[in-house]
Amino acid sequence: MKEVQALVFDVFGTVVDWRSGVARWLGPFLAAHGRGDLDPFALADAWRRRYQPAMEEVRSGRRPFTRLDVLHRENLELVLREHGMDPGRMAEADLDDLNRAWHRLDPWPDVLLGLHRLKRRFFIAPLSNGNILLLANMAKRAGLPWDAILGAEPVRAYKPQPEAYLRTADILALPPGRLCLVAAHNGDLAAARAAGLATAFIPRPTEHGPGQKIDLAPEQAWDWVAEDFVDLAAQLGA
Amino acid sequence: MKEVQALVFDVFGTVVDWRSGVARWLGPFLAAHGRGDLDPFALADAWRRRYQPAMEEVRSGRRPFTRLDVLHRENLELVLREHGMDPGRMAEADLDDLNRAWHRLDPWPDVLLGLHRLKRRFFIAPLSNGNILLLANMAKRAGLPWDAILGAEPVRAYKPQPEAYLRTADILALPPGRLCLVAAHNGDLAAARAAGLATAFIPRPTEHGPGQKIDLAPEQAWDWVAEDFVDLAAQLGA
Repeated sequence: MKEVQALVFDVFGTVVDWRSGVARWLGPFLAAHGRGDLDPFALADAWRRRYQPAMEEVRSGRRPFTRLDVLHRENLELVLREHGMDPGRMAEADLDDLNRAWHRLDPWPDVLLGLHRLKRRFFIAPLSNGNILLLANMAKRAGLPWDAILGAEPVRAYKPQPEAYLRTADILALPPGRLCLVAAHNGDLAAARAAGLATAFIPRPTEHGPGQKIDLAPEQAWDWVAEDFVDLAAQLGA
Repeated sequence: MKEVQALVFDVFGTVVDWRSGVARWLGPFLAAHGRGDLDPFALADAWRRRYQPAMEEVRSGRRPFTRLDVLHRENLELVLREHGMDPGRMAEADLDDLNRAWHRLDPWPDVLLGLHRLKRRFFIAPLSNGNILLLANMAKRAGLPWDAILGAEPVRAYKPQPEAYLRTADILALPPGRLCLVAAHNGDLAAARAAGLATAFIPRPTEHGPGQKIDLAPEQAWDWVAEDFVDLAAQLGA
């Protein structure tokens, strides 16, 4: 455990509150298009439900690597149609701006302080399925002090495929055991552990809203379990 | 010109003084290995002379994409042998540490202030032939406030190949003309212009030492010519 040199972070859910953030930008969009009757949180959930199936097309090899902004945009159009709206009749700039809601998500309250402390002792980077521009715009807006923007795009593989973790370790010139994945999702951590990474679990019990049922607690004996990023920094002596 | 949204920077020579930096770490290494008689600046120049030929193996397709840390290490061993030293009898940790001299280069005096100003108005990133870890370690040590670490490794192409510029624009989801390359090298700028990028020249008249003969002045009508990064920020209204 002592030899961890780099901390790599899941982002959607672990670092940022995607559901509230996406709903915040969906609300005015729906109102402007005459659909103020729709619940923006329900649409955010519907948009997110299409996230894993879209990446699965790439993981399975049925589709070449395609960055997340493109998948998000395709999924947005499907969700709008599913709710009786016609994206073909909307301005391209409006759709692109809404798609970039994912670039403008806010971090959970403990994140900035925790990351600034962790950065003093470790190399810190996102290991997210988000693309470089999405993660970089998010960091610039929110002040996330990453040392580099890593994730699916530089390694051309989506988590939880082992290549996503192993090629990230290769970029950092470290054996996998010198990286620790920090995530709020037991499944992501299980895949990281199978690839040889150390693991740290942080619960985010309202990621999916007030009725969340999953990922409320650790499901394996992860190397660290912390309340939030500040607690993790304290546990790691940072 | 008005539509530039991202500034991408050449790094070795333009952002950092590689020659003094590499010589600074070579000096103690040579002394420790009984070769205090050798001039560390001359060895830094010899190491750097092998830089373009090594990348040319990759550009030509004779060798698959190989990150710069690996090329630097191979070149270091060649330079040491050329000077009568045997890297095979040196500690691996010593050679790796010396190879990482390229991760520990200092920026020219105007860089930090200039980049902090430019970052407020533009997306800023390196577009260097250095690999991600090299550029990220350099940024962490020197405080370079990049919005993302771009360059040869994420696009798997070495400048001046057009793919290096065009795939970087693609990562940023911008047409090439919305990117501006900032560089101290006319050849790099010429290749960027041929790929459709805007161009800014900053002279670094001592990059190669006191007797420098090349790149002392702009050789084309670049879109901007500035004395240094602070002057560039002023010209760009940042």
